[in-house]
Parts: sequence; structure tokens; C-alpha cells
Amino acid sequence: MAYPRQNAGVNAPASLTILAVTGLPEIGPGDDLAALISAATALVEGDVVVVTQKIVSKAEGRVVAVDPDDPTARRELAESDAVRVLRRRGDMVITETRHGFVCANSGVDLSNMADGYAALLPIDPDRSARRIRDALRARTGCEVGVIISDTFGRPWRRGVTDVAIGCAGLRAVVDLRGTTDALGRRLVATEICLVDEIAGAAELVMGKASGIPVAVVRGLDPSVFGSGSVREQVVRPYCEDLFR
Amino acid sequence: MAYPRQNAGVNAPASLTILAVTGLPEIGPGDDLAALISAATALVEGDVVVVTQKIVSKAEGRVVAVDPDDPTARRELAESDAVRVLRRRGDMVITETRHGFVCANSGVDLSNMADGYAALLPIDPDRSARRIRDALRARTGCEVGVIISDTFGRPWRRGVTDVAIGCAGLRAVVDLRGTTDALGRRLVATEICLVDEIAGAAELVMGKASGIPVAVVRGLDPSVFGSGSVREQVVRPYCEDLFR
Repeated sequence: MAYPRQNAGVNAPASLTILAVTGLPEIGPGDDLAALISAATALVEGDVVVVTQKIVSKAEGRVVAVDPDDPTARRELAESDAVRVLRRRGDMVITETRHGFVCANSGVDLSNMADGYAALLPIDPDRSARRIRDALRARTGCEVGVIISDTFGRPWRRGVTDVAIGCAGLRAVVDLRGTTDALGRRLVATEICLVDEIAGAAELVMGKASGIPVAVVRGLDPSVFGSGSVREQVVRPYCEDLFR
Repeated sequence: MAYPRQNAGVNAPASLTILAVTGLPEIGPGDDLAALISAATALVEGDVVVVTQKIVSKAEGRVVAVDPDDPTARRELAESDAVRVLRRRGDMVITETRHGFVCANSGVDLSNMADGYAALLPIDPDRSARRIRDALRARTGCEVGVIISDTFGRPWRRGVTDVAIGCAGLRAVVDLRGTTDALGRRLVATEICLVDEIAGAAELVMGKASGIPVAVVRGLDPSVFGSGSVREQVVRPYCEDLFR
């Protein structure tokens, strides 16, 4: 599936609201996330629903047993879920996952998990997002965007931020080439990764410690909606990559 | 000045609002940004004001002449403002700036600039943020946070996002180590780069093409306010860096 570069600019809204979705139960294998989310909050047309990877992995059964007191076991698990190890430091590895994500420990995560279990990344987070989007549309009648978010570190900058690992119904990267800036100059190379900015914004109402796994971003301009894929549009191909 | 790691967690608010600040005039050397911002929007206690680097550079006179039709001239300008060149591709260079930022062309930017001029990064963006914050407090009586944002690319992921290059009045990176997750497990290493998430969120109402240079993020929990510095807290020291 090809996602051509989209040359139409997007419009910025005058204001946005970000809402935490509270009251979701603990998620287990087979749970219907769209049913739980639409019961917990009243969605409206044009909302973007940001769902943390952790509950998507739990609902999809992407949970494995791991000894929480054996950091080597976690590292081995991370390596088994990777196509490449880029760096090692102690028991932490920076890997490239089969999706093409470069992150710590292949995204294998023990936080907000029962003792002795770890969550792996969804097999295909874009597909996970599409499933949730389709089910939300069927339940609510609203066209919404969906982002699956996860918490990644970055080189050169301290601290983690939430980014998109999957999306549906949203233009993941908006290409402003061919549009002009406020002074009428042609913008040469400005591809904005909208879905990462939305995922990070949603994290501000989630909080790693508070365990709120879903947020709604309301008020984005209709021009940001469309077809999009994190894997196809955000993951940087080898040929473009200066740091792999 | 030392910014010790802060072990107290932050609380996530139930909702946040992001507001575009419109109606600012074209900015020139010596302009009082705090006066213009406080005249354009009604700030309230606890707001975070996100100001794009471009207008801070213009107000601080960090503007130089460059031939817009000579990409080599821009590259040489970028290199002259760098302490190190990490990668080259054509006329684009990935450099480390004297602030420690790793970005394209040392942040030298021709968009939203008059023909023949380029904006350089502020000399000390944390100080720029502190000045604006102090002046906003004097004018409005409100304690607000200030972030200076710029648009950076990332390795491994396509598309740019806005990140913080300076801040004042905000805990730039919040260390959740020592706090527990929703299931009571101790979080081992979760330092969240709040200021980058806030900068990216603000970009969603700015839009590269629409030229809105200021946004307000309203509703963050009081626990995110405090002393902070992008240079001291976000720029990753060499000893921690796996990719420099």
C-alpha cells in the first residue's frame, strides 16, 4: 500500500482540547477496546483517540512471562523481538524492531504489568489502529482518527516522549513542500510528523504514573484526516537514514 | 547552576487546552515580545507560553544576510555556527550547535524570513525564556512557564516535530524514578521530557505555513512548574550519549 506524499498543506486550528479518558477497567486478552472507550467517553466527529500501546498489547494477548528480577531475561526477550541490535549498555539494548522502530529493549515493557509479565509491541500497530477506528465508527457513527502511542527515548536529548507507533484515519506526516510560508516564500522541506506531536500532546494528560491509557484530542482541522500509516510514512527508509 | 533530578512525580490534568495567539505584528530587532504577547492574549496563572525560536531570534537581532539562491552560503553559515558537523548530505549538514543541540543546518532557517536573510538560534534560549517569563510576570502578575520552541528532525523517523530549545519556570524533564505505576510497581527509569511534549503540542495550533508564532497551553498541573533548563536537563551529556 503506497502513501503518496501529500502536497496540500494543513490548516492549524485556533484551539485544541486534550481530554483524559478515565474509568477504563484493567484490560485483558480479547477485550474490545472500542467498546470500552466509547462507553467511557462521548466521542465526536473529528476526534483523535490516542491509545497507549500497553492496553493494545494486552487486548491482543501480546503478553509474555518474564522473571522481573532477572534483567538478562528481559534483554534476551527484547533481542528475540528485534531484527537488529544497534547499541548495548548494561542490560539495556537499543534495537530495531521488525516494524522498523528504533527504541530501547524492542519496546518490551514491564511497567503497569502484573509481576512476572511483560508486554510486547503489537504485531502491526497500524492495523491495530484501523481495527479500533473501524469499531469506533461502527459504535458511534463518528469518523475519528486513532493513534497507538508508545514511549521512546531519543538520541542527543534526555527524557522520553510519547510517539505514534500506529495510526488510522490521519495523515501521519504532512508534507508542506509546495506550500508557502506566511511571507509567501516557498517552503522547501517541511514534512511535519503530526501523529508524533499528537501522541506527545496526549501524554500530557496521561502521565506515566497515573495509568490513564487513553486520551482524546479534539479540535484538529479536518485537513489532517485522511489515510496514513506510521510504518509506511514515519519509519525512515534505510536509503534516507543518516544514523542507522 | 545545577538542576538536581527531581524525584517527585507530576500529576496529569484531566484536560488541557491549547490556544493559538493571533494578531502579533511582524517582529523586528528590539521588540518587546512579552509586551506584544500579553497585549494579544489574556494569560492566566499556570499558563505555559510557547514562543517559536524565529521571533525570539528576530527580536534579539539574531538575523544575518545570506544569498537565498546560494545553498552553499547557507551551509557555510550553518557550519560557522556549529561546534561539530555530524553528517553531510548535499547542501544539508547535521551539526551540533554550541548549545549542544543536534539539528539540521545549526538551526539556521530561511522560512518566514525576508528574502536574503536567515535567522540564527538565540545565543542562550533558556535565558531568552527567562527574560520573557520575567517580563510577562511583571506585566500580568501571573506566574507562567515559557518555552522557546524550534523544529527539529529526528533520526529513524521521518518528519520534523517542534521541541524545546529553551525554557523557564518549568521542570524540563520530570523524573518518575522512585514513583510507582498504577499497579504499585516501582518505575525504574522514566524521565519524561515534558517541555518537548508541550512544544510539539503547541505546534499543532501553529502550523508551519500559517505563521502563528505563539501558543498558550492551559491547564497543566501545578506540579510541572519549577526551575528547569533545556541546556542543563535536556541536552544529553556526552557520557550518556550512545549516538554522538
